[in-house]
Amino acid sequence: MIKRLGAEFIGTFWLVLGGCGSAVLAANFGGDGNPLGIGLLGVSLAFGLTVLTGAYALGHISGAHFNPAVSFGLWAGGRFPAKDLVPYVFAQVLGGLFAGFILWQIASGSSAFASDPAAAGNFASNGFGELSPGGYSIAAAFLCEVVLTAMFLVVIMGATHRKAPAGFAPIAIGLALTLIHLISIPVTNTSVNPARSTGVALFAGSGAISQLWMFWIAPILGGMLGGMYYRWLAPNND
Amino acid sequence: MIKRLGAEFIGTFWLVLGGCGSAVLAANFGGDGNPLGIGLLGVSLAFGLTVLTGAYALGHISGAHFNPAVSFGLWAGGRFPAKDLVPYVFAQVLGGLFAGFILWQIASGSSAFASDPAAAGNFASNGFGELSPGGYSIAAAFLCEVVLTAMFLVVIMGATHRKAPAGFAPIAIGLALTLIHLISIPVTNTSVNPARSTGVALFAGSGAISQLWMFWIAPILGGMLGGMYYRWLAPNND
Amino acid sequence: MIKRLGAEFIGTFWLVLGGCGSAVLAANFGGDGNPLGIGLLGVSLAFGLTVLTGAYALGHISGAHFNPAVSFGLWAGGRFPAKDLVPYVFAQVLGGLFAGFILWQIASGSSAFASDPAAAGNFASNGFGELSPGGYSIAAAFLCEVVLTAMFLVVIMGATHRKAPAGFAPIAIGLALTLIHLISIPVTNTSVNPARSTGVALFAGSGAISQLWMFWIAPILGGMLGGMYYRWLAPNND
Amino acid sequence: MIKRLGAEFIGTFWLVLGGCGSAVLAANFGGDGNPLGIGLLGVSLAFGLTVLTGAYALGHISGAHFNPAVSFGLWAGGRFPAKDLVPYVFAQVLGGLFAGFILWQIASGSSAFASDPAAAGNFASNGFGELSPGGYSIAAAFLCEVVLTAMFLVVIMGATHRKAPAGFAPIAIGLALTLIHLISIPVTNTSVNPARSTGVALFAGSGAISQLWMFWIAPILGGMLGGMYYRWLAPNND
Repeated sequence: MIKRLGAEFIGTFWLVLGGCGSAVLAANFGGDGNPLGIGLLGVSLAFGLTVLTGAYALGHISGAHFNPAVSFGLWAGGRFPAKDLVPYVFAQVLGGLFAGFILWQIASGSSAFASDPAAAGNFASNGFGELSPGGYSIAAAFLCEVVLTAMFLVVIMGATHRKAPAGFAPIAIGLALTLIHLISIPVTNTSVNPARSTGVALFAGSGAISQLWMFWIAPILGGMLGGMYYRWLAPNND
Repeated sequence: MIKRLGAEFIGTFWLVLGGCGSAVLAANFGGDGNPLGIGLLGVSLAFGLTVLTGAYALGHISGAHFNPAVSFGLWAGGRFPAKDLVPYVFAQVLGGLFAGFILWQIASGSSAFASDPAAAGNFASNGFGELSPGGYSIAAAFLCEVVLTAMFLVVIMGATHRKAPAGFAPIAIGLALTLIHLISIPVTNTSVNPARSTGVALFAGSGAISQLWMFWIAPILGGMLGGMYYRWLAPNND
Repeated sequence: MIKRLGAEFIGTFWLVLGGCGSAVLAANFGGDGNPLGIGLLGVSLAFGLTVLTGAYALGHISGAHFNPAVSFGLWAGGRFPAKDLVPYVFAQVLGGLFAGFILWQIASGSSAFASDPAAAGNFASNGFGELSPGGYSIAAAFLCEVVLTAMFLVVIMGATHRKAPAGFAPIAIGLALTLIHLISIPVTNTSVNPARSTGVALFAGSGAISQLWMFWIAPILGGMLGGMYYRWLAPNND
Repeated sequence: MIKRLGAEFIGTFWLVLGGCGSAVLAANFGGDGNPLGIGLLGVSLAFGLTVLTGAYALGHISGAHFNPAVSFGLWAGGRFPAKDLVPYVFAQVLGGLFAGFILWQIASGSSAFASDPAAAGNFASNGFGELSPGGYSIAAAFLCEVVLTAMFLVVIMGATHRKAPAGFAPIAIGLALTLIHLISIPVTNTSVNPARSTGVALFAGSGAISQLWMFWIAPILGGMLGGMYYRWLAPNND
């Protein structure tokens, strides 16, 4: 079990460091209006590639969840035992926080960030209402997180079903996360992952922390709905 | 059959929500001239990834058409029975409409969209003439949709041929849809899929609805031509 | 043989329609400085995806060369019989020309293109000196085309070697073409493929035609060098 | 052994030519603020695709390290014999230098580059402090290179572990390099590879050479840490 948790820890670390790191360090490189920066497209790709690469490297050790909503969704879908939920979620949150810490150390090495941390997109934290990148309401943000996490679990359950082509699941799952970010960064900065939200919220200040509850409830609810829908569509013993 | 239709429904929902959602919510993020938005490249990638991910997750249940032109093309190519055409197309259109509805709910949560829905690229609807993003004529639009849907079916028929490498078809087919969008968003906003066109047209207003006929005729015609060409090139029992 | 040539024809058609089509129709969408357009990155991706998708669909029929420099390079590498060179190259050039014709029909449907075809990047033709996008000299253009086509053949020979993982060659080869475009569009608009150069040069006017000789000589020379280097590195019967 | 070194030489040549070539020739195409250029996203993709394509083509010959930090990391992880370290690193550096030389020849063919080589992003060399693209401190640059090279080795060790899906390692490893660039180009212009840093530093002038020591120490240290962490996580005989 310790090695499975070590894999979840380092995989979630990679997810938050890579996804949020690309957002904080490179999304808006060169300043407003400079097309050299990687933009929302580059950040979307980065998030997906953390999971694609992490799942090939660590999937055979821990299953490569890297996300409490995935662990809960797989449990609801009948693929993950309840007794492992708490240790998995604990390792994931720890990995996310460690990534937030390392990212803060790197970002602080730039004089621009050191003098005004808030300028870097609020340290890639998630939010709604005034903290939504595009000013989306709490209802739209909640709906968006629930629906997209549900679809994420449909892809995860389906791509790892024993009738799906073997070996391709990390590609499908990683690129599903890219797709989810391509849709929803303007709405909530895209969470679908409570560990990712928690990992940076502690460094982003009180606003992000006060909204953190939603990025636990909505992804986990959505993940469980998606897991159950797919379980109906194609039972595990199909 | 009900589970196959459930897979077509949720897969087409994903295609329209992901593809059109990225276009409506994220393509032009930040306003005109802001390079943070994902642009036509990001939208092209999103459309392709809906199919890549959906096909890995659902292909072993329904074959993952998600598109009436694909169902008709595969029928013309001798790979799909005529009796399943109507239920498949019905489930696809229903999934597309549900995606249009959910996307409208999310988009309406932004004050900018709520006050002027038309500003968001006409809700990602397809069009020609005055409704073509680049002002392309009806003849160019028709030719473009026919040719690209035909090539889409050539790729689908070929990548799922029993002599093609097993397991890779979702990558080839999904990225073919990305490629098709990279070429033709300026021409018609890219349909090659009547369910995708219908799913958003009902929410985009009377202009899009009045041109909807073409995005049923041209893709289905093209899909059947492509299916027949490939059947000649490599018969199914080759 | 007729079906192998039918596959080379439609595959080269797809390569030129997709690659040059994305360049002509979508690269600069919205006009100068508008980040909605797909830019050189989107065009690079489009070229690669034509080969990736075409190779999965048609590779088991013809080997999916779609390029005279590839056919000559594989011959130099001991993988393709000399007697098939002429018919393959003929089918490839025909496919490229048909793509140039269809693309011209679609592009002409836009009033902007109809009034000033030259504005669309000279119809995606290849060139050096004054016709190089970045004003590169003939020597730099020649060196660039030779080296990149040589490396293209190294990837093709290697990814299809019997010791390489089976089934992945279309991904490696398609994305190698994307990479080649990411490097060299500013230099020559990237050819590495005489059929692609010829397919659009006839529609792009006398300037492109007068430089066409180089985009036959340099890619074929480079392709043969790459084929021979890899043959030394890993003989076919290794 | 000579053919293994020939594979490392040509693979590292491809890595530096493709990655640095895209940066020098295409990243900022059209000048400041022109969104046609491929930007940091395109350069990140190019670096990753050099490894993805090179590993499919050459992996079965040499293992496809193309990077001294990878060779040292695999040695620390118990996957590579100490006696091969020196010849591998020698071939890698030679390939990097040859790429720097060819790239200089091509770039010099543009009148803009010839008159002011420094304008092209300092020939894609790596640096910290005043030579960091985003002005990051030496401490941030060092931490960033160590952490990212460590994670690179975690992905490499994991994706090539005998329990990981066979054949997919080049995709995981290549796209991990893309991800690393998406995060860290603003910090150090991204090295994680001493041969890549050396290959262009000799052409970029005295500033880059004076900082070259760090891009040997940090990547090799990070690579060894990553190799050892993964070895603990999943021993080779697991």
